[in-house]
Amino acid sequence: MTSFEEAETEETAACLHMTFYHPCQDDKMMFRCLNFCKREQVRADEMAKFGRDPNICHYNLVDTRVSRIQFSLQFYRKPNSSELCFEIKNMSKKTKLFVDHVELGYLNKIDLPWKCIVCFGDYQILMEIQEGESLDYFETHLYLSKVPILQEKCIRLVQPLPENSIIPSLFPSQGKSPIEIDENES
Amino acid sequence: MTSFEEAETEETAACLHMTFYHPCQDDKMMFRCLNFCKREQVRADEMAKFGRDPNICHYNLVDTRVSRIQFSLQFYRKPNSSELCFEIKNMSKKTKLFVDHVELGYLNKIDLPWKCIVCFGDYQILMEIQEGESLDYFETHLYLSKVPILQEKCIRLVQPLPENSIIPSLFPSQGKSPIEIDENES
Repeated sequence: MTSFEEAETEETAACLHMTFYHPCQDDKMMFRCLNFCKREQVRADEMAKFGRDPNICHYNLVDTRVSRIQFSLQFYRKPNSSELCFEIKNMSKKTKLFVDHVELGYLNKIDLPWKCIVCFGDYQILMEIQEGESLDYFETHLYLSKVPILQEKCIRLVQPLPENSIIPSLFPSQGKSPIEIDENES
Repeated sequence: MTSFEEAETEETAACLHMTFYHPCQDDKMMFRCLNFCKREQVRADEMAKFGRDPNICHYNLVDTRVSRIQFSLQFYRKPNSSELCFEIKNMSKKTKLFVDHVELGYLNKIDLPWKCIVCFGDYQILMEIQEGESLDYFETHLYLSKVPILQEKCIRLVQPLPENSIIPSLFPSQGKSPIEIDENES
């Protein structure tokens, strides 16, 4: 057995915080297969795929208007840099994907900014990258917003964030419990 | 039944021609699981993975010195362009990957030039892109070289290629039969 003293220094993993919103989410429940309860790990050599086909997409959107694969995310390192980046790629032939104001057609891809809003159809996703060190995997943490994201004022952070912390702008508190805003709070 | 006149116009697919060489290929037969006989199709939403683990890598290299996944290739479109590109990503923590003279560490990636030599360890791969139109899939066509690729003089093509044709520089003739140079020819 490895003792505490001899154990390898624990690494933090980069985490992609994703806050979802759709105007019909209460009726159509397209997010019912997403796991909003806990962080999930994605191996660095895998793509995180979001879409309608649960056989291909770990992140499954239950909606006939969503493509079999809507978009994918990959993790990579910039050359001559230790910087870890995420790249988003539109995998839908039918629907444009917007990253802030940049329009992506089918098979177009772009680096995710540190904080951005991704839209396709009526879907809105606030994406926020929390830096980490691990090269083996990254994490995703999903949230559900009761209010439209595009109409929200984004809080511009004037102070740099403390290391390994993140403050999702839409959430007044962030604990270990499932992050779904209670109606009384929103 | 759709008649010939009504059928959709056939699309050509982009093809990546890859010529493999390893100094011990005759003894160690690391290429024995690669299919040198015919073109193979890769769906545009999939990564083409090359490496030791046949459960993950369709293109399987049978060699304990090769990483579980050595490198991957993805197909994408540049924004505001119809140009189709290939991107190569080094998936090996242990081995650097060289694309011509560019060194890629673990999780580094780069666009494949139209014609280039990819190296890792003692492996040499000449890669040549043949343009195509299809957005649904691309093709790979694998060849085996009996002679080192790095020491070969690359034939610079002065004339533009006829549409949908490619002349792999190492091969004097290219037919429908498996492309493996006879020792008398090389």
